[in-house]
Amino acid sequence: METITLLGLLAAVFTTSSFIPQAIKTIQTKNTKDLSLAMYAVFSTGVLLWLIYGLFIKDVPVIIANAITLVFALIILSYKIRYK
Amino acid sequence: METITLLGLLAAVFTTSSFIPQAIKTIQTKNTKDLSLAMYAVFSTGVLLWLIYGLFIKDVPVIIANAITLVFALIILSYKIRYK
Repeated sequence: METITLLGLLAAVFTTSSFIPQAIKTIQTKNTKDLSLAMYAVFSTGVLLWLIYGLFIKDVPVIIANAITLVFALIILSYKIRYK
Repeated sequence: METITLLGLLAAVFTTSSFIPQAIKTIQTKNTKDLSLAMYAVFSTGVLLWLIYGLFIKDVPVIIANAITLVFALIILSYKIRYK
């Protein structure tokens, strides 16, 4: 695999996995006061659009990265809505 | 422009702009207790890698979207570090 492709994959692993510690923290504490509802609403919509885009262009890394990110973003969003 | 390209651009606008309301909220309140330090550290690193990747493949949308996102992610990260 080319170095540039590896760089892109590494970037995807970082941005995708970054939402895991936030989701864990939010689930454990149920404290969402400092989280922006607008951020998670707009971000989840954007990630869903990326996922649909990935399905259209049949790009597996785009599909997988955004499907995983969407799960964590929606978990955080649902906690923000439930525990305001 | 093709519908699919427009969908990708729309997705980029959503995921990029989503960090603006979080940055505004964090700057105004200086409350960062509920934000995950690990999330913003890993996310900022990932966005920087995406930016470098975009420069390598000379893809202007990838460069612009990640340069803008990096600014807001680093603002939030710096507040998280300063106002723990």
